[in-house]
Amino acid sequence: MLSNELAARRQLLQRNIQANKLDAFVVSFISNVRYLTGFTGSNGVVVILSERAVFFTDPRYRIQAAQEVACSVRVVAGPILPQVSALLHRVKSKRVGFEKSRMSFEDYQILKDSLPMRSSLEPLSGWVERQRMIKSVEEAAAIRRSVQLNSKAFEEAIKHLRPDMRESDLAAEIDYRVRRHGAEASAFETIVATGPRTALPHARPTAAKLVRGLLLVDMGAMVDGYASDMTRMLCLGRPNAQMREMYNAVLDAQLAAVDAVRPGIEAQVVDRAARSVLSKYGLARAFVHSTGHGLGLQIHEPPRVGKKEKTPLEAGMAITIEPGAYIEGVGGVRIEDTVLVTQKGCEVLTPSSKDLRVV
Amino acid sequence: MLSNELAARRQLLQRNIQANKLDAFVVSFISNVRYLTGFTGSNGVVVILSERAVFFTDPRYRIQAAQEVACSVRVVAGPILPQVSALLHRVKSKRVGFEKSRMSFEDYQILKDSLPMRSSLEPLSGWVERQRMIKSVEEAAAIRRSVQLNSKAFEEAIKHLRPDMRESDLAAEIDYRVRRHGAEASAFETIVATGPRTALPHARPTAAKLVRGLLLVDMGAMVDGYASDMTRMLCLGRPNAQMREMYNAVLDAQLAAVDAVRPGIEAQVVDRAARSVLSKYGLARAFVHSTGHGLGLQIHEPPRVGKKEKTPLEAGMAITIEPGAYIEGVGGVRIEDTVLVTQKGCEVLTPSSKDLRVV
Repeated sequence: MLSNELAARRQLLQRNIQANKLDAFVVSFISNVRYLTGFTGSNGVVVILSERAVFFTDPRYRIQAAQEVACSVRVVAGPILPQVSALLHRVKSKRVGFEKSRMSFEDYQILKDSLPMRSSLEPLSGWVERQRMIKSVEEAAAIRRSVQLNSKAFEEAIKHLRPDMRESDLAAEIDYRVRRHGAEASAFETIVATGPRTALPHARPTAAKLVRGLLLVDMGAMVDGYASDMTRMLCLGRPNAQMREMYNAVLDAQLAAVDAVRPGIEAQVVDRAARSVLSKYGLARAFVHSTGHGLGLQIHEPPRVGKKEKTPLEAGMAITIEPGAYIEGVGGVRIEDTVLVTQKGCEVLTPSSKDLRVV
Repeated sequence: MLSNELAARRQLLQRNIQANKLDAFVVSFISNVRYLTGFTGSNGVVVILSERAVFFTDPRYRIQAAQEVACSVRVVAGPILPQVSALLHRVKSKRVGFEKSRMSFEDYQILKDSLPMRSSLEPLSGWVERQRMIKSVEEAAAIRRSVQLNSKAFEEAIKHLRPDMRESDLAAEIDYRVRRHGAEASAFETIVATGPRTALPHARPTAAKLVRGLLLVDMGAMVDGYASDMTRMLCLGRPNAQMREMYNAVLDAQLAAVDAVRPGIEAQVVDRAARSVLSKYGLARAFVHSTGHGLGLQIHEPPRVGKKEKTPLEAGMAITIEPGAYIEGVGGVRIEDTVLVTQKGCEVLTPSSKDLRVV
C-alpha cells in the first residue's frame, strides 16, 4: 500500500476527529487498523491524534511492523491498552473516541480505569467503516485482481468435477486452486451444496457425495488483502422444469438488481429491484436474505444491500449482487457477482458466465 | 456430541451460577455457546438459568438448531439481545452475568438498557473457558483425531516439495491435504516460511520462491470442531553450523518443556524449562513468545503456557509446547507438539518425527 494513501486516510479521520472536538481516537478493530496503517498482522492498535498517529503492537511483530507501518511504532511486551492510556496521559487527551461495536466491555473498562480523571471515553460507531466503503483506485484494482483470480480458480476446479466426489472434495479443490493462483486464502468457508442441501443458504460442505440436480458453489479469494465473492450454479445431469424456472427467476432478479445499481440511490432500491422480480415468479418468500453486501478488506462490510438500507450508493463502492430462492426439500438457487459502483452505473467485475452449466 | 455430556457441562455452570448468587448467565461467545449446546453455526446466544437453558438463533439456522441443540430453542428474526432481555424480564432475573471479555461495549449497552431497572449486569470472565480447559474423554479423542490427520497431511504435502515452489504453493498443498482427509478446515492460516523469513514468528506464506536453508511449517486441522497444532522444520540443502546449533537448542528446549509437563505444577514452570535451556545456548532473547497455549474448540484457549502463568496444569488439559528462536536477518526455528496432560505427566499426541529433515 502506498504510504501517502495511508496518510490520506488518517488525515480524513483526523478532520473528522477535529470536527467532533475529540482529542484522540483509539482504533482497535484489526481491519480498521490495517486500513489506516498498512499493518497486516493480527495484533495492533492505532491511536489517531489530531496531528499524528501512533501504532502499538507486540514483540512478535517488531520486524513486520517496521516494514509495513509508516507512522510511529511502539512495540510493547504485555497488554497494549495500558500503554495506550499512558500515551493519552502524556499528550493530555481529554475526549477520547473508541469503537463501541468492536471493543469488548472488558477492554473499555481497562481503558476507562487508566485514563486521567477528567478524560472521557466517547463511544463511536462506523467512522473508519464509512471511509472504507469508498474504494480508492488502488483498492478497486486489488478487488479486480481478487475477482479475476477467483473466477479462474472456479473454471479450473469444475474441470475436476467427478460424480463420485464429496461436497467437501470439491470445496478442497476450489480452495487449493484459489491458493495456487496466489491468493492469500479463500475469503470465507467455500460453500458447495448439491440436491436439497442447496436450500440451506449457509450450507457447509459435507462428506455427502454429489447428487444429480442443482450444485451451488459460493466462493471468494483474498488477494493483497481484498476479497471477492461469487456464486454460480451447475446442474449435474439435465435440469427439470422446476429447476429451470427457479434458475431463470433468480437470474432475472440478479440482472434487474445489477441494472438498478447507480450512484445516488439508496441501497434498498437495489434490493427492491431483485425482490420485485422474484415476487412476479411467486418466489418472494423463498428469498430469505439480503440482495448483497459491501466487500473489501472484509468479506462483509458496509453497506448492506438490504430491505431497509438507506445508505446512498456512491461511485467507488464495491458490493455483491446475490439474490436467491430456497425451497425446503427441493433446493435453492443463488447467483452472485461482485460489482463496482461507477459514475454512471456499475461495472460487473465477475467475468464468469451466468449460464446454468449442465455437466 | 452426546447430549448428556452437554447437559453435564451446563449443570456445572449452573452450580457456579447458584454459588455466586446469580439468576442467569448470558453466554454470547460462539465457542462457548457451542461447548454448552452443541450448536455449530455462527450466530447464537444461550441463556443459562438456574434450572434450564434457552438457546437463541436467527432463521437461517432454524433447521440446524433443531438438529443440534437439545435445550429449548428460540428462533428470532432481527436482533437477539432484546429477546434475551424479554426472557430475563419474564423469569424475573435480578443478577445477570455476561462475558465481559467477549461482549462488545455496544452489546453491553443494548442489554443494560433493556433490562428491568432493578436488575444488574455482572461482568464475568473465563467461567466457561475454565470448564473448557479440562477435556472430556470424547473431546480428547477428537483432538487426537485432529492431530493424527494433521500429521498425515503434513507427510503427504512435503512429498510434493519442489525447488521452484513458492511458500504459498506449499501452504496450498498442505491445506488441500488437510481438507481431503476430512478436516472441516485448517485450524489457522498455515505458516510456511523459508530463509530469513523464518525469523518472523507469524510469517504469512508469500509468493516468494522457497530458498535454500531452513523451512518452517506451522499447521493445524479442525476435526469435529477440535484443533490440532504442529510446527516442524525442514532444511532445503544441507544446514550450516549455525542452523544446526539453533535447531538443536530449540529441540533441547522443547524436550525439556515436554518433560516438565505434569499435573499440579503452574504452567509457568513449563515455560521456564524451555527458557532456561535456550538461555544456556545464548538464545534467551531470541525466544520472543510463550512456550505454548491450550487448544480445543479454539486454536488458542486457556491456559497460556507463558512466563507468569500461575494456572496449575491438570490431567485432561490439551496444550502446545512450541519454543522457538528467531534472529533477524538469519532465520528462526520453532518445534511444536500438541500434548495432553495425564495423571502422571503428559502424552505427546503429535506423531511426526522431530528430526531436522534435509530435503
